[in-house]
Amino acid sequence: MKLLEERILRDGKVYPGEVLKVGGFLNHLIDDGLLEEIGKDIHAHFSGDGVTKLMTIEASGIAIACYAARHFHAPVLFAKKSKTANISSDCYTTEVVSYTHGGKSTVFVEKEYLRAGDRVLIIDDFLAHGEALRGLIELVRQAGAELVGCAVAVEKGFQGGGDELRAKGVRVYSLAIIDSMTDDEIVFRSEDGSAS
Amino acid sequence: MKLLEERILRDGKVYPGEVLKVGGFLNHLIDDGLLEEIGKDIHAHFSGDGVTKLMTIEASGIAIACYAARHFHAPVLFAKKSKTANISSDCYTTEVVSYTHGGKSTVFVEKEYLRAGDRVLIIDDFLAHGEALRGLIELVRQAGAELVGCAVAVEKGFQGGGDELRAKGVRVYSLAIIDSMTDDEIVFRSEDGSAS
Repeated sequence: MKLLEERILRDGKVYPGEVLKVGGFLNHLIDDGLLEEIGKDIHAHFSGDGVTKLMTIEASGIAIACYAARHFHAPVLFAKKSKTANISSDCYTTEVVSYTHGGKSTVFVEKEYLRAGDRVLIIDDFLAHGEALRGLIELVRQAGAELVGCAVAVEKGFQGGGDELRAKGVRVYSLAIIDSMTDDEIVFRSEDGSAS
Repeated sequence: MKLLEERILRDGKVYPGEVLKVGGFLNHLIDDGLLEEIGKDIHAHFSGDGVTKLMTIEASGIAIACYAARHFHAPVLFAKKSKTANISSDCYTTEVVSYTHGGKSTVFVEKEYLRAGDRVLIIDDFLAHGEALRGLIELVRQAGAELVGCAVAVEKGFQGGGDELRAKGVRVYSLAIIDSMTDDEIVFRSEDGSAS
């Protein structure tokens, strides 16, 4: 998606440790106009797939999932990372490693909100090593629901998580795939798969 | 807002410890149609106030803020609870006690995303003792930005946080105010301030 690539080039910042900071428009301050376009684009890609539920993980995926939900007219389920007093004990649970947070966390959804018969599109802001998506896919599997695919805003292609999932047959749609990045240059993968 | 009150009566569950569970439509599984109406209602209430930024706190406030943002055409800033590798060290910071999580957490926003000149509407899913709103108001104050008011979906009126803020002159708009709740009955405050 050209609009997102251009925004990354303009406002993204490369931090040490292969971290791309996009907090100014995607996952801390959220640009309403950009997210509208991202939501539309995700819907255009999966509109024919009978999606009944969007699923993401707190916190940064929620905004993108909500902007997509308007077009699917489907509910958004977000996996949680900490048990609170208002959570039932009857949950699907898995472990996820986070590279930006550092460390492992247990993520879960309540069983009553994810069921066999659901056709689930997983949405997230970032795809790097693929840990969060693998965790969400595992929750879908536990529920006996059907995975339609995964849509992410930014894939760090050079960290391999996206291509590993694709090799396993998961439909992964990324609006911008970064093949390499340094302080000076961010190179996107073009739609035919080559670096551009 | 009648639609939200009716939904709480239909699908809300009262848990021990004065906890109201609305995970089936508001803050775990998010009902797209209901949130559309909530977003519109919040906008209708504050549309004449020159709001330039919506602000919330991860995770449950994000969805509501995004559904409102479409109408304000304003960005959403969400305060974070944990420092990650992609966060700058230059932040406004405060402490917030959470009753549902149990315990205190440090919340913060990066300084570059909240500035003097911003006219900020704070949005959250719940208002109980008012800890989260007070924390967000403190961040707005630190930035020298202007607070327009606070909009929340569900206020637990009997816990007093909303009325304390109103007594201090903060405009607090709640779409549903619960004056009392037991396993058998949830009583809402009517728009003239009486219990209904």
